[in-house]
Order: sequence, then structure tokens, then C-alpha cells
Amino acid sequence: MKGESPVNIDQNRRKIGFLGLGIMGSAIAQNLLKGGFEVTVWNRSPEKCEPLAEIGAHVVRSPCEAVERSFLTFAMLADPAAAESMLFNPDGAIREDGVLNGLSDEKGYIDLSTVDPATSRKVGAAVSARGARFLEAPVSGSKKPAEEGNLVILSAGDESLHQDALPCFEKMGKKIFYLGTLGNGARMKLIVNMVMGEMMIGLCEGLGLAQAAGLEQEDFLNVLDSGALANAMFRLKGPQIGAGQFSPAFPLKHMQKDLRLTLALADEIGLSLPSAAIANECFKKARQLGSSNEDFSAVYKSLV
Amino acid sequence: MKGESPVNIDQNRRKIGFLGLGIMGSAIAQNLLKGGFEVTVWNRSPEKCEPLAEIGAHVVRSPCEAVERSFLTFAMLADPAAAESMLFNPDGAIREDGVLNGLSDEKGYIDLSTVDPATSRKVGAAVSARGARFLEAPVSGSKKPAEEGNLVILSAGDESLHQDALPCFEKMGKKIFYLGTLGNGARMKLIVNMVMGEMMIGLCEGLGLAQAAGLEQEDFLNVLDSGALANAMFRLKGPQIGAGQFSPAFPLKHMQKDLRLTLALADEIGLSLPSAAIANECFKKARQLGSSNEDFSAVYKSLV
Amino acid sequence: MKGESPVNIDQNRRKIGFLGLGIMGSAIAQNLLKGGFEVTVWNRSPEKCEPLAEIGAHVVRSPCEAVERSFLTFAMLADPAAAESMLFNPDGAIREDGVLNGLSDEKGYIDLSTVDPATSRKVGAAVSARGARFLEAPVSGSKKPAEEGNLVILSAGDESLHQDALPCFEKMGKKIFYLGTLGNGARMKLIVNMVMGEMMIGLCEGLGLAQAAGLEQEDFLNVLDSGALANAMFRLKGPQIGAGQFSPAFPLKHMQKDLRLTLALADEIGLSLPSAAIANECFKKARQLGSSNEDFSAVYKSLV
Amino acid sequence: MKGESPVNIDQNRRKIGFLGLGIMGSAIAQNLLKGGFEVTVWNRSPEKCEPLAEIGAHVVRSPCEAVERSFLTFAMLADPAAAESMLFNPDGAIREDGVLNGLSDEKGYIDLSTVDPATSRKVGAAVSARGARFLEAPVSGSKKPAEEGNLVILSAGDESLHQDALPCFEKMGKKIFYLGTLGNGARMKLIVNMVMGEMMIGLCEGLGLAQAAGLEQEDFLNVLDSGALANAMFRLKGPQIGAGQFSPAFPLKHMQKDLRLTLALADEIGLSLPSAAIANECFKKARQLGSSNEDFSAVYKSLV
Repeated sequence: MKGESPVNIDQNRRKIGFLGLGIMGSAIAQNLLKGGFEVTVWNRSPEKCEPLAEIGAHVVRSPCEAVERSFLTFAMLADPAAAESMLFNPDGAIREDGVLNGLSDEKGYIDLSTVDPATSRKVGAAVSARGARFLEAPVSGSKKPAEEGNLVILSAGDESLHQDALPCFEKMGKKIFYLGTLGNGARMKLIVNMVMGEMMIGLCEGLGLAQAAGLEQEDFLNVLDSGALANAMFRLKGPQIGAGQFSPAFPLKHMQKDLRLTLALADEIGLSLPSAAIANECFKKARQLGSSNEDFSAVYKSLV
Repeated sequence: MKGESPVNIDQNRRKIGFLGLGIMGSAIAQNLLKGGFEVTVWNRSPEKCEPLAEIGAHVVRSPCEAVERSFLTFAMLADPAAAESMLFNPDGAIREDGVLNGLSDEKGYIDLSTVDPATSRKVGAAVSARGARFLEAPVSGSKKPAEEGNLVILSAGDESLHQDALPCFEKMGKKIFYLGTLGNGARMKLIVNMVMGEMMIGLCEGLGLAQAAGLEQEDFLNVLDSGALANAMFRLKGPQIGAGQFSPAFPLKHMQKDLRLTLALADEIGLSLPSAAIANECFKKARQLGSSNEDFSAVYKSLV
Repeated sequence: MKGESPVNIDQNRRKIGFLGLGIMGSAIAQNLLKGGFEVTVWNRSPEKCEPLAEIGAHVVRSPCEAVERSFLTFAMLADPAAAESMLFNPDGAIREDGVLNGLSDEKGYIDLSTVDPATSRKVGAAVSARGARFLEAPVSGSKKPAEEGNLVILSAGDESLHQDALPCFEKMGKKIFYLGTLGNGARMKLIVNMVMGEMMIGLCEGLGLAQAAGLEQEDFLNVLDSGALANAMFRLKGPQIGAGQFSPAFPLKHMQKDLRLTLALADEIGLSLPSAAIANECFKKARQLGSSNEDFSAVYKSLV
Repeated sequence: MKGESPVNIDQNRRKIGFLGLGIMGSAIAQNLLKGGFEVTVWNRSPEKCEPLAEIGAHVVRSPCEAVERSFLTFAMLADPAAAESMLFNPDGAIREDGVLNGLSDEKGYIDLSTVDPATSRKVGAAVSARGARFLEAPVSGSKKPAEEGNLVILSAGDESLHQDALPCFEKMGKKIFYLGTLGNGARMKLIVNMVMGEMMIGLCEGLGLAQAAGLEQEDFLNVLDSGALANAMFRLKGPQIGAGQFSPAFPLKHMQKDLRLTLALADEIGLSLPSAAIANECFKKARQLGSSNEDFSAVYKSLV
């Protein structure tokens, strides 16, 4: 279906709102624009809207305006607090110019942010109370997959909204999962990111030990890439780590936040995760050493 | 080159000895036989020689006899002690019917076992003292890659012997690395297995949490396999873990031994590896719970 | 001062409310009664009030009534949610029959529970908004010190209230610290309990390894008690662990909650605590194995 | 018995050899001298013998000479390799001027070093083969207890030798344990040191978090010292850590060696020790950061 223009969708349904234009949000919004949707964008710092305005996005001054102009509105924020701030003020009251005051029966709100299940349920309940539909749809993949429309989409919540959002999802991602009850998308995303964090620590310990033991890091990466452990993340990040190149595709502070949320989920359930707990401490150490805004692979620097 | 018969190798050079017929050794020896080599086999428990005898292997009663009949002799043993036992008695004296008494100038001895660098150097020194050539060549990959001739070979030591062994290596593996100084093969193997152990813990924690959080393990594995973390080990082991199927391709006790040796290497160098240390404790816990001889993926049972 | 009756305190000031009669609360309330205070008690399950009623406590049906009848009211609840429930309903609204509706200018509310700094600040703000005074005063020590009036009291918040509460604190504890700003008591308590959790894991690993290595656990405890590591906790808990006796002085689930809160505090600050993180996972493992309501020393069973 | 002079011991039995004059050895040898024994000392770097010579020790040039002149000879070396070097050359052959060539029937050799059980058994077997008696007697306690004769002595092996050594032990230590079979002393020492390492990490994490959370480290240490966790090590080391004072009473590299040996013991037995494993990695990190020769409390610097 990908690449095809959404001809069988009526004009109204092509009106899409997009809130949050960080690394990921900008790339996704751009793909929606290129895919033929009419996109209205909003971002807290308005200057980030400019590159999208230049390729045809309409820029508004509040989340509420974006929702009012759109059939579906997507949000991509950095963390649970930022995701909630689209709907609520810090004191918990409904945000005057927020998402809720723009919603109505037919509209849909879709949160692509990585949040904990509790935040997702809270947002979903508030949207439902307005008679509108809600979907959580965290995505797996960082900057490059976002730019190339190759994300993995983990959708959960209102199934009719999932169907309505499919033409958009197809511009964003190569794999689209519908996982049922609200909260399941958040949970899946957190668990996948936990595994990603643990694999990154494994890669970094391997690279550090290879070098300390007198082996070439390049040989080590080639050997890894020849066997059953070969994977795209090692292939991409391995040489960058070796070269000391840590410009953020997925900022380290976000990885550490995801580990924190995953460990909180496991704590609630009562499951012990010793390796994830240590991975979390390694990423916290990297924060301590000043790598919060570098790529999450910068955890390497805290290990060697 | 693969699949081609070794026509340009003279008859003498086609005589190969093979010591140690466990899961890995049997598969490799079989590929050498199928590849047109004349293979002489020895194993501590002689009954394991029978399947190979049936397809043409010559069976002998001691490591020494195997070496005497062969141009190159390969060994594939379970751990450093077993690898040393091919040459020495437990008290350190030279083993009467061992490898050393069968060696001479032209011959080569190639140890495929996963051992620590110190063991490798000790064996190498004893072989050199007889005027013969030594190569360590630990392999990466377990039962299936061994059977299919798809191992990754990490050779280090005498480079002329590496050249002479290439026609054999090509029957065993798809990727053949020559890594220089003796010890580098052992180190590389240990570090790769460390990463494998850490990735396995990550997979198991993910599977355990997915289930505890109410997600389908199958969905979780599909999501993992859709993104940058996708790898052959997760693809193979994930469904087996979900199905509680732990028959040993790579026994857990060997994985734990490799982690122990890797941590000893890092300790010697003075490098802290918090995640590998915890992975080691998880595998030890699994030993405590009785999974030593199951597949290393049985570490799952100690986590949930 | 201890043991002396509070003759110089006027009658009104001798009226004390006490909310929460678990293991700790019952022991403390009893010491206040024995110390000559007029104590009004409330507990969610009213039957726990009976033993105190028998020795002179007045029993009421709500937190509000207890506060209304008292100059100072103490609370001792199991966790942050229970501590908040004295003031608020689950939906966040003010609890009709809760603490707040009973407070007035002169009165003081003192929370002895172990909570996180954020909960403490929230409760403090609500109490201040009613014009009343608030003090957090978590205590260090478990069942026996509580019974013997030997707790360590970590008070922080309104200093005039600290002065007014001193005659009560002197019936509860042998050491009374005033730590300044609200939140400092909570933080100090969490950090001390973190060290306690880590020491308990150390003791349990030692006991487990001593036994596995063929030593007498009793010899091990005697050796420990002969050197610089000797401490009252090891002396008390060591033999109980050896005897498999885990009746709860300090329930394991509360220790794990404290570790969770301490790790959240450290995460907020950005400090990596690898050993506390692993201790937390050990206690979580013990929860998984069914020891939530046993003594925190039952973490031993998850280690051996 | 302590302080009493050994009048009922004949002149020959008062002749004592002492090998190894590091921080611990010097202090112990001095107490033997002060206690009325005739002490012959040897050290690899001879200049360390001078302060003892000044107070009456006889200095010799080899371990063998010290043993020849003495009824009992004590050794206090830094690690298993150094302990073995008293008897063997690096290649495993008997050291010409070593302990073994000085021994005979009546004599006793007592190793106070902290070693692994295997080293102890190896040394014991070699001593027995000469017809002499062997005792391992690792000590618990660092510089100050050594100087004050307040060590804890963990003796195991030949019981008649233990009886003969008692007058010496009474000059060194306040508590003397006889633990049976050779190896039990080594094991006990390692396990106690493991607990010490874990407690030190707990103390350091507590001090680090207290400071980061805005509390006074001094308050924290006072609170710790008021409750059931109070112990002499925290009392001694806590203020030194706070003051950044890390001059070595017990060098960090020796603590890390002991953790390594303890973990190896647990690995052999098959016991998982997650917290000790992480403590070991913390001490290794401190080695990485250059604190090998500082006090083991310098692990603090790797945590904050």
C-alpha cells in the first residue's frame, strides 16, 4: 500500500493535526505531508514549525487549534509529563487551549509518545469523556527509520480509530501492530526499549573489552555481524561508538526514562529484572557524566 | 570455494584427526568427512565414535594415535581442563598417549575449543616445544550452524598452519577470521559469547515481562523481529523459550563458564563489566536451579 | 527526661491522636499511653483498637474525630498511598472524615510514616493551607525498638511543632534528630533503609555461602560479631535467618517499597546506585516467591 | 591470658620466624617482639626489615633461613601468588631458598595471608610432604586492630600446631577461632571480607545520596550510628570518606582480590551472589579510576 496516494479517503479525513516537532515528530509529520495529507502542526517552540511550513504545513498557536482543524490529531512528545501537558495544566486542571477543548464525537486523538500505561489510561479516559476516540500508538525506531517511513507502530485502544488511522500509519511505518486494550501499546514499547537498552550495554561492554584486550574493535564488529547475533542496531551504532560519534538519534535521557518506566511496570507486577536494573544504573551513570542529550550509545563512555 | 572438493591438496594433507565428539565436534567431523577428508576420530566415551565410523571415519583409542595418523588434528573439548587433558595428565605431566607424543615437525594441532587465553598459550608452548605448529580456532555458533557448515571461525597463532587449515575451515564455516597473535582467538570468542549471554538475558527478561504484563509473547517476538534489534538468535530461541523447550544446542553450563572466563579476563585487565557480571550471576542461578545441562536459554526459568 | 511524667505540660497539650495501629503504630501508641498522655486512636480495621482501648485509649471512628479531640495527632501508615488517604480520597478530593476537616490553627499533625519527599510536601501543603502545622517524622527501627521506646526519630518541617512534640518523641525514641526543611526527614529515612537493605543482602549472601562452603553459620556469625562489622541487626537477624524464622518485624514488602522510593529519589537527582538497584531486585524476587508479608530478612530464601 | 609473658614455653618454642612485612605483617611482628618472642624477619624489599631490627628482630636473607632459625614461622603476604612464592618458583619448582628447604618434623608453618582454599591446600600438602605441620590462619581486621593486637584469627588445619601457636595468636588477636579442616579459615576470611565489601558499598552509596539529596553527611552518619546498623567500620570510615581521606589501611586492590576469590569459590559451589558480583565490579571500576593503592573506602570516588 505504501507510496500510494490516499485517493479513497474523503477530503475531511485527509486533515491531520500534529503536535510536537522534535527529532521524531518532525520526520513523521514530513512523511504525512509528502504522503498527501493536509497537516496542521504545533510545537511549543514555534521556530521548529518553520521547516514544515516551508513544505506546506499549516502552523497554529495551540494544540486546541490543531485539533479543531483536523479529523485525526497525532502527538509525539518526549515523556509522560509532556504528553499530559497537551491536555492538562501542571495543577491537573484541563488546559484551556489544549487538546480536549478541540475534540468532538467524530474526531480521533492518537498519542505516538512513549509513556507509561497509567498516563495512557488517564489521557484515554479524558478523551473518551469528551465523546472522542483515543489510540495510543508508540513507535519503535529512531531518527532514520522515522525519516524513511520504516517505524514499527504499536497501536492499542479504540479499534475503529486504528482503522481510520491506518492510511497515516502506512506513511510512517513498515510494520503496524494492533495490540488490543489501551495500555498494551505503551507496555510493548517499554519492553522493546528495555531489550534495546540491555543490548546496547552488551555491545558497549564488548567493544570496551575488545579494545582493552588488544583486539581491533572493527574485527569484533565483523565477527558479531557474521553470526546469529547480527542485527541492524549493532551494525549502525557499533562503528559510531568506535569513532566516538554520539550525536543523538535517540537521546540517552529518553532511553533512561524508558528503563525507569519499565522497571516501575515490573515493580508493580512484582517481577525481578536484575539485568534491566543494572542497565538503568549504567544509563544513569552516563547522565551523571553529562551525556543526557547525546545518543543513548554514549553509555559507552560511562563503561570504559 | 565452499562445496568444492579439495582436489589440489595432496593425499597426505587430506588426513585429518578429530578429538572430541560432543554436539559440536560430531557435527564438524561429519562435515569434514562429507567434504572428502580422511578423518580419524577419538572420543573419551568410545560409543560416540560409532555414528562417524558408520560414514567412514577411522576410530582410534588415543589422542596420540589420531595425531600420528594425521597431517592436521583438530580438537573440540568442553572446557579448558578438558582441552589441556589432550596433552597433560591432571598432575601436569605429559600424557603418555596424548597429543604431544604423536606430533612432529610438519604436523599441526588446531584447538577449536573455547578456552581462556592462558590455556591457549600453555598448549601452544607445549606444541611448539615439539617443533610442531599450533593454532587456536574457537568457533562461534552452536549445533545448527555446526551441522550446516555455517560456523564463524576465529583463528589465531601460526599463520602458515592457518593457510594449511583453510580447506578444512571452509567445510566448517561461512566466515573465517585470522586474528594474529595466539590468544586473540580465545579472547574474541569469549567476548562474543559474553554479548550473546547478555542478549539472552535481555530476551528472557523481555519475554518474562511481556507475559506478566498481559501481552502475547508471540506479539512481543514479532515486534522485536520487525525493528533494528531483529536477529537470528532471538528468532530461533524466542519461540522455544515460549514453548518451554530447552534441549541443549549450547549447554547452559558452557555459557556460564565462558562468562566466568570473560570476567576473569576483564579483571586481569582491570575493566568493570557490571552487566556481564549480573548475566553471569543469572546463569549461575540457573545452574543452582538444575539447568546446567539444558540449553543456555533455560536461564529464562531462573528469571520468572 | 525519659520515663518522667510530663507534669509541666498543660492538660490540653496532653491530648494526643494516633492514626494507624499496625505493628509499629500499636507499639508507639502504647508507649504514649504508658507515658501519661491521653490517647485517642483510630485504625481502618477497628478490631486493632481493642488492645489499646483495654489500657485506656479512647477509640474513634474517623481520622477527623481523632484530630478534633487532640492537640497533636500522629499517623503511622504503611506507604505513601495510605499516608495520603488520611487526608484525601482516591480521586484526589479532600476526604470528608479525614484529617484536614479536624484541623485548626493551634493543632499539629505529625506523620511518622516512611514516605517519599513528594508525598510529604503534598500533605504538608494541605495542612498548612488549613493554618495548622505539619511535621514529618519517620522513625528508624522496627518492632522491638518501637516497643522499648528506642526508635530513632527523623523530624523535619515546622520547628515550633517539633518543640511541642518533643515530650511525645521522648516516649518513643532514644535519639531525636531535627533535620530542617520538610522532606529531609523522608530523605534521611529512605537512605538509612537503603543501607539497611544492602546490609541485609550482604548478611544473607554471607550466610548462604558459609553454609554452601561447609562452614557453620553460627561460626560465621560469631566471626562477624568479633570484628569491625559487628552490629545489632546482624546479631538479631543472623540466628533467626539460620533458624528459618521470618515472622515480620519489618515486612519485606515495606523494605522493597523503601528501596523503590530511594531509587526514584536518586533517579530524580541523577545518581547511579548499582548496589541498591540490585538489592531492590533481590527483594522483588523475594516478593515473587511469596515472602511479601514475612520479615525483610526472608530475602535469604530468594538467594539460596 | 593476654599480656601474660609466655614463661611456660621453653626457650626453643619462643623462636618465631616472620615472612612479609607489609602494613599488616609489620604490625603483627612488632606485637610478637613486644610479647617476648625471639623474632627472625624476612621481607622481599629488605629495607622494610629495618624498623623491626631496631626493636630487636633478627633479619635474614631468605625465607629458608627464617624457617631454619625458628620453631614456628608465620607468613603474611599480599595474595595467593605471593603466598605460593614462599615455597615455589614461578615455574612451579620448589624454591631453593624457600620455606620448604628449612622445614623439619617438629616445625610449624602458619600462613596468615588471605588466599583461596586451593592455594591453602597446595601449600599445606607441600609442607606435610616434608613431615612438617601447616596451619592457615587468615586474620580479620586491618591496620589499627593489627597494631593493637585486636585481630580476629581464623585458624584451620593441624590442630596440634594450633595449640602450639596459641601463645603467639594471643599477642595478635582478641578472638581466636579454630575452624577445623584446612581451607575453612580461607573460606571464612573470604566470606567475611565479602560482607565487608558489600557493607562499604552500602555506606558509600548512602553517603553519596545523602549529599546529593541536600542532607549533611555528618547527620547521616550520626543517624546510622544511632540505630541497629551502627558498627565500628562505619564509625571509622564514614568521616574519612566525607573528608576525602583515603590513605590505605586496607588497600582497595586487596579487597577486590578477595571479592574475586570469593566469587570464584561461589562459582565452584554453584551459588549465585548478585550483590557481591556488583560490589566486585564497583571495586574494579575504582581500580580503573586509579584507586588500587588507596584504602578500599576509595570505592566512594567511583560511585559519585
